[in-house]
Formats: sequence, structure tokens, C-alpha cells
Amino acid sequence: MSRLDSFIRRLEAQRSCLAVAAELVGPLDGPVLELGLGNGRTYDHLRELFPERDIFVCEREVHAHPDCIPPAELLLLGDMRDTLPAACGLLGGRVALAHLDPGTGDAAASRALATALAPLIAPLLRLGAVLVSEPALATDELETLPLPPGVRPGRYHLYRRVSRISPRS
Amino acid sequence: MSRLDSFIRRLEAQRSCLAVAAELVGPLDGPVLELGLGNGRTYDHLRELFPERDIFVCEREVHAHPDCIPPAELLLLGDMRDTLPAACGLLGGRVALAHLDPGTGDAAASRALATALAPLIAPLLRLGAVLVSEPALATDELETLPLPPGVRPGRYHLYRRVSRISPRS
Repeated sequence: MSRLDSFIRRLEAQRSCLAVAAELVGPLDGPVLELGLGNGRTYDHLRELFPERDIFVCEREVHAHPDCIPPAELLLLGDMRDTLPAACGLLGGRVALAHLDPGTGDAAASRALATALAPLIAPLLRLGAVLVSEPALATDELETLPLPPGVRPGRYHLYRRVSRISPRS
Repeated sequence: MSRLDSFIRRLEAQRSCLAVAAELVGPLDGPVLELGLGNGRTYDHLRELFPERDIFVCEREVHAHPDCIPPAELLLLGDMRDTLPAACGLLGGRVALAHLDPGTGDAAASRALATALAPLIAPLLRLGAVLVSEPALATDELETLPLPPGVRPGRYHLYRRVSRISPRS
């Protein structure tokens, strides 16, 4: 499969997972959290999916398309390893849906970031909230959800925020 | 339609148009010409479609994925307004398929570039060659071809190199 084919499948997987997640969190109150703005394409899609919700955006430096710049009061500017803990007062236990796509193009760097971020993202999510993520995340407060049809396992990930899962007896 | 939706459709249109073009140029000899390398995704796709052909690549500066760097002898490095005329000795009337996607994200800049490049690209193409282009091009040596099913008119373009079309009498 060419990189073009693979990229199209990844974007389609992202869109399908966001659609499923949007349905799942329909009954939940709370803002949306976009972890990584990039060029703003997914942010624009989130605005369409969630016209009534605040969409907070984490980004180190904004280089998005001019139509896709979040309002300053919803922008958490800086390294997510700093901004997510700092946002706990504002967002802790409130976020209904979060989306993580570091989009580094470097699988190893993306996995390392996911490992660092998982314990920082989970406390921001309310119980039942959904996290849509390109890299896999592991923390005992996130339960893996089934992927929508057509999305190959591992291409994208869906998680639900649960109470800390007890170790199996 | 969100920018994510629009981007997915553009990539799908590109892939469909390249598939049609590959069939059309099957009987023609000649190299492939990628006008703009970018991250190298489409170049990688062209390598899959044309494993037996040389793929020449025009790019100002190479910033592609390490797996998608063309061999130095097939790379035309510099501004296409300079490199295309200079390549006429090597490629003039030989290219079987060319693909143009400036990918500037700026529609006006893309159209201006297309206007400047059309008269430089046409002489490189052999008769019957196909040009797949994101921006529309107009020169009387390029005849518009029908788009594959599912591609909205204007989203991508297919042209065939013909003898200079005579003005209608």
C-alpha cells in the first residue's frame, strides 16, 4: 500500500471514529478537547460535529489555516506536558470528548508522547467521555471501545473514561 | 463540508484520476513527471503505479519523508519556472504522464502558478500523454478529459496532450 493509500485510510478512520464518538457523547455535557491543532482540518471538523460546545485546543505554536484558528480564550498554548496539568482546574473531569493526533509522522515519537500524555488526559475526562486517538494509550482509567466498521485495528483508537479499573481477582 | 471532508475528497480524487491516467498511458512509452514532491506521498503512489518507469521529480527543496526521496539523477531541483525549460533537452516530447499538485493551500497562488507552468509543461509531454492536475490549466495543446466517477468537476483535472488545437472555423 502506498503512503497515499495509507494516509487516506488514516483520515477516513479518524473521521469514522469521530462520528462514532460524537454519537456516544451526545448525552454528556462538557467541552471538547483537541490535542494538537496542526493545520486545523480536524478542528474544523470538530466545529461541525459540535457546533454548540466549546472546543479547547492544545498546541505548541499555532500554524493553522487562518479560518481554523481557535478563539484565544480556548487555546492552551505550550507543550501539552505542561498545559494539560495546568488545565486541570479549568477542565478536570469536565471534557466530554478528546481527540489526540500528534501527527508527527514518526511512530516512535508518537508512541512516546502518548505514554507521557495518557495519565494527563484521563483526569480531564468526565466518566463516560470518549477519547479518540491515533496512537494507542494505556492507563487503567481508559477502556478500549470497538472501532467502527472499515477501520483496521491499530489504525485509530477509541477509549471510554471509566472509574479506575480494579485489578482482576 | 469541513476541511477534513474536503481534504479526503481531494486525495480520493487525486488517486482516482491517477488510476485513470495510468490506464490511459499504458500503451505509451516514456517517463513520469511529478511536479512538486511535498512529503512524497503521491510520489510513493506513482512508484507503485509505474514500477517500470523513471519518475522525474521537480521540487524547490526536498522535505519529503526519508523513504520518498527520489534518486538524485531524477531530481530537478529548483523553481519549476526555471527547471522545466531547462529540462526540455532531456524530457521534451517524451513524458507519458505528469502530475501537478502545488499543494500551496492557497487557491489564488496555485492558479497563478498553473498559468505560468502550463506552457512549460505541455512541450515536455508526448502526444497522447496525460496530465493530472489539481489546478486547472489552459493551453491549446491540452485537451480536457472526462473525470472518473465520483470526482466532482473542478476538484481535480485530467488533460491529454494533443497537437495544437486549431481555432474553430
